[in-house]
Amino acid sequence: MKILIDGMGGDFAPEEIVKGAVKAASEIDETVVIIGPEESINDELHKNRWHGDNIEVVDATEVITNHETPAMAVRKKKDSTIVKGMNMVKEGEADVFISGGSTGALLAGGLVILGRLKGIKRPAIAAWFPRIGVDGNTLLLDCGANVESKPEYIFQNGLMGSIFVEGITGNRMPVVKLLNVGAEEGKGDDLHKEAFEMLKDAGQSGSINFEGNIEGRDIVFGDADVVVTDGFSGNVFLKGSEGMALAIMKQFKSKLTEGVVAKAGAMLAYTKIKEIKEEFDYSDAGGAPILGLKGAVLKIHGNSKATEVYYAIKRAVNYVNNDITGMIAKAVEKTQSDTDNSDEEE
Amino acid sequence: MKILIDGMGGDFAPEEIVKGAVKAASEIDETVVIIGPEESINDELHKNRWHGDNIEVVDATEVITNHETPAMAVRKKKDSTIVKGMNMVKEGEADVFISGGSTGALLAGGLVILGRLKGIKRPAIAAWFPRIGVDGNTLLLDCGANVESKPEYIFQNGLMGSIFVEGITGNRMPVVKLLNVGAEEGKGDDLHKEAFEMLKDAGQSGSINFEGNIEGRDIVFGDADVVVTDGFSGNVFLKGSEGMALAIMKQFKSKLTEGVVAKAGAMLAYTKIKEIKEEFDYSDAGGAPILGLKGAVLKIHGNSKATEVYYAIKRAVNYVNNDITGMIAKAVEKTQSDTDNSDEEE
Repeated sequence: MKILIDGMGGDFAPEEIVKGAVKAASEIDETVVIIGPEESINDELHKNRWHGDNIEVVDATEVITNHETPAMAVRKKKDSTIVKGMNMVKEGEADVFISGGSTGALLAGGLVILGRLKGIKRPAIAAWFPRIGVDGNTLLLDCGANVESKPEYIFQNGLMGSIFVEGITGNRMPVVKLLNVGAEEGKGDDLHKEAFEMLKDAGQSGSINFEGNIEGRDIVFGDADVVVTDGFSGNVFLKGSEGMALAIMKQFKSKLTEGVVAKAGAMLAYTKIKEIKEEFDYSDAGGAPILGLKGAVLKIHGNSKATEVYYAIKRAVNYVNNDITGMIAKAVEKTQSDTDNSDEEE
Repeated sequence: MKILIDGMGGDFAPEEIVKGAVKAASEIDETVVIIGPEESINDELHKNRWHGDNIEVVDATEVITNHETPAMAVRKKKDSTIVKGMNMVKEGEADVFISGGSTGALLAGGLVILGRLKGIKRPAIAAWFPRIGVDGNTLLLDCGANVESKPEYIFQNGLMGSIFVEGITGNRMPVVKLLNVGAEEGKGDDLHKEAFEMLKDAGQSGSINFEGNIEGRDIVFGDADVVVTDGFSGNVFLKGSEGMALAIMKQFKSKLTEGVVAKAGAMLAYTKIKEIKEEFDYSDAGGAPILGLKGAVLKIHGNSKATEVYYAIKRAVNYVNNDITGMIAKAVEKTQSDTDNSDEEE
């Protein structure tokens, strides 16, 4: 198995990417391929005193930044890490591509180079959301691949998310819910009402374990394993929760270090606070897969450091071993056998 | 001035409602009118040893619950607190109506009995969102009145929110931003792209101080005074943030009371933690106004206790004194003079 990682993707590339790759490669048997400017990647490997034999470097001289129009950049920068990386997955030279680069470029590259799985209307970005009181995380999708949505996209998010969670966690028939403005049936706008009906039908036919609507405030308490929605509200929900978590942690830190008495208390309580921070921080979640492409692509956060890279590589092994892409293809073919998506080209 | 409060609205009615009303009435000169079953309201007043002269009781024998279809309940329950309350505002017998009852019934009652202000396409629910690093709160609208939205609704939310915040806080020309999936111009689905253009035009003509898009994670850090969006994503954002805040607070509490050493630390740090909880708890925000109706309506949370009721009554005085309704009417008339909303009846 070859796990390909974008050596230039993210704010701390290539240093942290290579550092994380070295850590992961020293623990696994699979080959880690780092794509990027050969010289600087090798420099970093040298700095990390790498002497193993399961890291390869593939040269790519260009980088697509967040400031470029994704579709155009993908067309023009043929020697970029993203375009070359996607091509390697397409040609079978790598089994999965991990990148902290531009989400737009990854999506555009994925669509243009890998293409969608037969029957899939739109690929989705799936992120792990932390939860308390219940083990593991909740998969949330779509987190922003399709801000203009249709009921069928949301329905397919349910299928893809269910297969992904089952494959990765071993949790048979995970609970799928629809993010909505109320828990009762019949809530929401037409988009979500129609998606509800499609998900309900899939639940009744046994393809997924659909248990209805969920409100935003209940997701963190673990009432579902997979939460599906459109890319606009998924993105807004995810970022809103992130902002709130960041803000509260920041306030705790500053309040607990202000004043001498409180400080004494804080010193003793710090270990616990660190534990909570880690609980709501999902750097070990292993990246957000872009589901629905003809190939495995994992997006990691642009601010990923070595730890996130390390976990993403380890999670990617699981992803490939379970053949998530193949399983999604099969499931969609089963439910969508009469659907042709040729009219849905970007 | 007469401030009308629904004695039967919410989980802790009538006890907590009356308790909060008594506290507020003892501090202000305005008359507080409590609507509900006369006998039980008077019982509660008695329990609270009320002997003042600025609380009145208006009898209403019915209550609309959260389990009823709002529109139907409003039509049928003529003697309910909500229907009677709205009628009192309509007839000028009260200047503002505060209720912790069914949001759907308040909206339906508001639309049917009070009606929309001329030029307003859809009333919106506006909630205060906590923020750190900047004084005050941020007004978020729409929080769920219209889950099926149009660009013009979102644009009008900007107008209404701006006037409301200016009127209540005295902050001249508050910063208005549009909740979106990215901060750059051109982000989002068609709905939000078109709303952006309308808000931008209003910004250029000087009717509001529009400063572009805002991402969910930045709202809590106070980058805007008013954040506008459609009712679906507003609701999802608000509840997602609430859930995250609740979850983290819960974890802090349980982690800090587990283990003896940590417990010692916790005791000392507790005061600070309580401060943070209050900061992110917005019970003093004074309720969420339903803007765009021909009359002032404030929705308070269904789980409101006496403190929330107290603050809502005090905030309502401000609401009426500043004639927010009249100001919105004027502003909308100015920008919408050529628009007729007769085709928009519910």
